[in-house]
Amino acid sequence: MSEAPTPSPRTRVVREPDRAVYDRDTVYRILDAGFICHVGFALDGQPFVIPTSYGRQNANLYIHGSAASRMLKQMKNGVAVCVTVTLLDGLVLARSVFNHSMNYRSVVILGEATLVEDPQEKLAALRSLSEHILPGRWEDSRPPNEQELRATSVLRVPIEEFSAKVRTGPPIDDAEDMNFPTWAGVVPLEMKAGEPIRDPQLDPNRAAPVYAQNYARS
Amino acid sequence: MSEAPTPSPRTRVVREPDRAVYDRDTVYRILDAGFICHVGFALDGQPFVIPTSYGRQNANLYIHGSAASRMLKQMKNGVAVCVTVTLLDGLVLARSVFNHSMNYRSVVILGEATLVEDPQEKLAALRSLSEHILPGRWEDSRPPNEQELRATSVLRVPIEEFSAKVRTGPPIDDAEDMNFPTWAGVVPLEMKAGEPIRDPQLDPNRAAPVYAQNYARS
Repeated sequence: MSEAPTPSPRTRVVREPDRAVYDRDTVYRILDAGFICHVGFALDGQPFVIPTSYGRQNANLYIHGSAASRMLKQMKNGVAVCVTVTLLDGLVLARSVFNHSMNYRSVVILGEATLVEDPQEKLAALRSLSEHILPGRWEDSRPPNEQELRATSVLRVPIEEFSAKVRTGPPIDDAEDMNFPTWAGVVPLEMKAGEPIRDPQLDPNRAAPVYAQNYARS
Repeated sequence: MSEAPTPSPRTRVVREPDRAVYDRDTVYRILDAGFICHVGFALDGQPFVIPTSYGRQNANLYIHGSAASRMLKQMKNGVAVCVTVTLLDGLVLARSVFNHSMNYRSVVILGEATLVEDPQEKLAALRSLSEHILPGRWEDSRPPNEQELRATSVLRVPIEEFSAKVRTGPPIDDAEDMNFPTWAGVVPLEMKAGEPIRDPQLDPNRAAPVYAQNYARS
């Protein structure tokens, strides 16, 4: 794999550059830990931002075509997109209003989304979407049939032009605020799974699989 | 307040229209429950999607200008944006791969972002951003001074052209899949706060405030 042309002038982090990360391993870790992405595209100058699930295979990110039904209508070749994945890790309570912040990990990928034409790549991409969210689930489900596959569009976005931003740790206050009489610190945030809720139509003797009982993101 | 011109052709939900919601109360509830938004704007045809916090005051949404530093450089009048807020509520495990889904609440607002010029509106907007994330915190923090306020840009996006999508409940499988031998149901997801982590530089006698100890979104 060739080295990414990153940061490009378009992905160089403008604001708080000390939080910028450009290495591919960090970006992959954030992408693999995220649940959903927000896909941006523009039609007639109007941007649209649509939340959707995604999968990754090596240096390609895949999204379900349904996320971009508006975009697909106009799509002949590739379409310029921005895919953003954000993980919120905590609220950062500083002494001054202006130093309040959040702990987070985010990735921004700029690129061209193209339709996946090859049936094998499409199937692998859909599997990566499923495995991304819930590893093991694909094998336990009724697989897609020919008709479903044909009716589904999948978009590929190469992970080539990207940047990440990461903030961790305590608040950073100005020296003159350090004695301001208030609490300061971090309220950690995490997406947690609850007890699985059975489909009311499910055979009552069927137990929830381990991956649903103890679901947690790495 | 006049009725919103919603759905417009641009905000009418194309995909899964049965999940579409266009009433303002539902949209406000989702906005008020969300943590962050993803703001989309286009520069030279390239979309950018940036995560950021936000506040709401009546029919206006406010975001911090720092989220759009690239955009602000080119901003003379308003800039077309899309603001999307997504809350993930659960993984929906169906019997077939293709009926897997997520339970979620999302709002898409299309509009023109304009800089807030009036100092009173700017201060109120910043307060709404703070109160949105952590009610009560503003009063406990060192307030912004004149210089900080001048150095900060705030953008206003009117909540006029919008749509929401909501999915709740169990999986919906095809009739012929109902006996497929697998578990089906929902893994609920929720953003949870952990124990507050004190700033190492904080006076050890200062206890965490109630809003940090028992933080939960409504």
